[in-house]
Amino acid sequence: MHRDIDITAQLARHALSTGLESLPDKVREEAARAFLNWVGVAIGGSGEPAVIKAAAYVESLGSAPRAKVIGRGGQMTDPANAALVNCISSAVLAYDDAYLPSVAHPSGPAAAALFALAQDRGTTGAEFLNALALSIELQCRLANMLSLAPSPFHPSLYVNGFSGPVGVAAGAARMLRLTEEQTIWALGLAASQASGFRGTHGTMTAHFRAGHCSRVGLVAAMMAEAGFDCAPAALEGPGGFFDVYADGADPGHLLDELGQRHVMLDNRYKPYPCGIVIHPTIDACLALRDRLPKGAQIAALRLTVHPVVLSLTGRRTPTSPIEAPNSVYHWAAAALLRGRAGLAEMQMDCITDPHIHALRSRIEATDAPAMGKGEAVAELELDDGTRLREHVTSARGSLKRPMNTADLEVKFRDVVRDHLAPDRMDALIAACRDIGQAGDVGAEIGRLLP
Amino acid sequence: MHRDIDITAQLARHALSTGLESLPDKVREEAARAFLNWVGVAIGGSGEPAVIKAAAYVESLGSAPRAKVIGRGGQMTDPANAALVNCISSAVLAYDDAYLPSVAHPSGPAAAALFALAQDRGTTGAEFLNALALSIELQCRLANMLSLAPSPFHPSLYVNGFSGPVGVAAGAARMLRLTEEQTIWALGLAASQASGFRGTHGTMTAHFRAGHCSRVGLVAAMMAEAGFDCAPAALEGPGGFFDVYADGADPGHLLDELGQRHVMLDNRYKPYPCGIVIHPTIDACLALRDRLPKGAQIAALRLTVHPVVLSLTGRRTPTSPIEAPNSVYHWAAAALLRGRAGLAEMQMDCITDPHIHALRSRIEATDAPAMGKGEAVAELELDDGTRLREHVTSARGSLKRPMNTADLEVKFRDVVRDHLAPDRMDALIAACRDIGQAGDVGAEIGRLLP
Repeated sequence: MHRDIDITAQLARHALSTGLESLPDKVREEAARAFLNWVGVAIGGSGEPAVIKAAAYVESLGSAPRAKVIGRGGQMTDPANAALVNCISSAVLAYDDAYLPSVAHPSGPAAAALFALAQDRGTTGAEFLNALALSIELQCRLANMLSLAPSPFHPSLYVNGFSGPVGVAAGAARMLRLTEEQTIWALGLAASQASGFRGTHGTMTAHFRAGHCSRVGLVAAMMAEAGFDCAPAALEGPGGFFDVYADGADPGHLLDELGQRHVMLDNRYKPYPCGIVIHPTIDACLALRDRLPKGAQIAALRLTVHPVVLSLTGRRTPTSPIEAPNSVYHWAAAALLRGRAGLAEMQMDCITDPHIHALRSRIEATDAPAMGKGEAVAELELDDGTRLREHVTSARGSLKRPMNTADLEVKFRDVVRDHLAPDRMDALIAACRDIGQAGDVGAEIGRLLP
Repeated sequence: MHRDIDITAQLARHALSTGLESLPDKVREEAARAFLNWVGVAIGGSGEPAVIKAAAYVESLGSAPRAKVIGRGGQMTDPANAALVNCISSAVLAYDDAYLPSVAHPSGPAAAALFALAQDRGTTGAEFLNALALSIELQCRLANMLSLAPSPFHPSLYVNGFSGPVGVAAGAARMLRLTEEQTIWALGLAASQASGFRGTHGTMTAHFRAGHCSRVGLVAAMMAEAGFDCAPAALEGPGGFFDVYADGADPGHLLDELGQRHVMLDNRYKPYPCGIVIHPTIDACLALRDRLPKGAQIAALRLTVHPVVLSLTGRRTPTSPIEAPNSVYHWAAAALLRGRAGLAEMQMDCITDPHIHALRSRIEATDAPAMGKGEAVAELELDDGTRLREHVTSARGSLKRPMNTADLEVKFRDVVRDHLAPDRMDALIAACRDIGQAGDVGAEIGRLLP
């Protein structure tokens, strides 16, 4: 650790000096896109069991009605608990975002906390977007510092639980217009609550971890606002955050070109609610579908994929929505026969559809070690002997082929479709598009949310 | 890690099978003594800046009035936030308890969480004491597992932040009468929030860490009650709590003779609000004071102590209440001249008292490497040539000379004296003494609290 660098204070000064006017247009736009994506998955996840249980716990506390619990029939709670539940909602479908260099998911903790705070404080859209961009950026950078060489961060620690609180606190501190000293306290208070490990994977607690880091980052900023203090160098000081979790890590990942280079532009959004290694195959099958002559009968479908695809997602016959995300056969069949690969294709009626099942059973999939993980070939043979072939080298949603805003809107409509009428979808998409102009973002977006 | 042992499930079964009727009398009594001590220091600390700020943050949330924020003018909040603030109160004077084998402070997190829950749920005194004894026991045992050989727990991690949540969750699960499965979830949810490091020492955040572990343990049990699930082996499983924080630790510290041997009986209470290494010297000086002839004039005071005493507490002239706990000279002078070593002796009027200052300046203190850390000699020379000598081999409050219940009541009266009238002190001491018979412990104790 470079103890000569006053990392906590540098982060605080950076957080407070960032203004929307100083951000490049593409950063501002990316923050708005992250928010649109977040609102969609938070609404889409709001009916899942983990959210229902978390919302019931919060309801049992009898908290004050200061911020909306999204998708729970108008339930309101305090900002800290709203951050908790709404971030669980956005995490629960595993359909949110991914910053691949350190496998961080920064939008959820940032957006849930800042939106809850915005509802409580009447924040403008400009202030909100600014804090959101800052928070996502710092989470990505801190996750890089913790996870990338030469850091010894334990591989079973949940990186978002450690990068999230500090990044959220920075954004909340900015939005609350804390002083530099208070912001330093907020960062330390947040770091002191960093937690989470991978051994709870596959349970509600895996999603709780995301909600928790959103909540504790927000609480840190609110407590610092109230005057609750912390050490001046809680991150880099002796016995501090880096000492215990990342001794030897390179602060360059966190600090280099801060404010100049925006790593949050590499944050990406999942186009399909399934394992990311399946995505190139889905793209290839969707492209084949577009080329399919009317009335064509499928004789054979052959996939050629990187070996990791079959090792991670080689389940041929999923029997439940929990198993569906890990079946490349299922998504290939669904994409080809239905022309879609969204939440509906994870449901039982699609999983048990006899046509899907029949095709799934006949697909031949072959390992090709020479192919990239982001690559796939799908070859279709029709009854009349026609052969169609698609070779995808970069999947939709990857850095080379990012989801454009129209793609995000399609995803949004798909993911919220059980929760919102079409006219409300339109209004919410429009409000998210114009979020930078909102006078009171919590009220203006909040009233459109289920 | 012994992966063949189902540690999480064993702890859950133990928690649920523990009943007050099966506890030895001395365990029950120790839990009641821990509670009396906790109530005192929680009241005594309630006017400190860290508590005022934390209470202001909680007030800003506008939470429902379900549990009392002790000493804050009748402020009420939800149980989770009451646990947070009341545990900060009891930690802030560093005058609570200490379980020396692993330097844990188990009473505060346990009592703050369980008392908040008791106020919300109308718990009987018997159920409360049972859960309190369980929670203190498990915190001590888990802290031993994390801290004692052969565990590699990082020395700058704050052990209570890791032992506290799980122990609190176990007690809360018992009090909430959770099922075994829910209790397993609660333990895992609590472990997933374990956090805290030493680099925030000397700030409000150092006390926040205690409050946080009280809060998160309680929240874990309440969420599990609502049906929020976790892994069946979150503590011992792959990528679980022990894997990331204590791989190689000995689960025997946690599990051996659980329910038979009660390590919580070794928990002790601080008799004086200062560094523990000063305590033998205070005892010696208080004993000298008792032997001082009326009107005697002090010519010299010589102390002979273990070297650690002067290295840790060798400040001769404290200038503020923050510095006072680390001056063996100050406490020797105060004990001899005032016959007391309580909170009043930490205040400015005592620190700046000319008589105290004059004696403090003249004390000769000598290192004696041959002496034990719990040992001290004080020799007094009077103007008439009389020499008096006291040799303390076990300080009051140590395991060989524990605070008896009368001592605890004296401490209680001292620590609450700025907050409660004498008749209310009497009533509260009596209510704590009879806590096992309370029909609704939250209401009966709660109405006596400031």
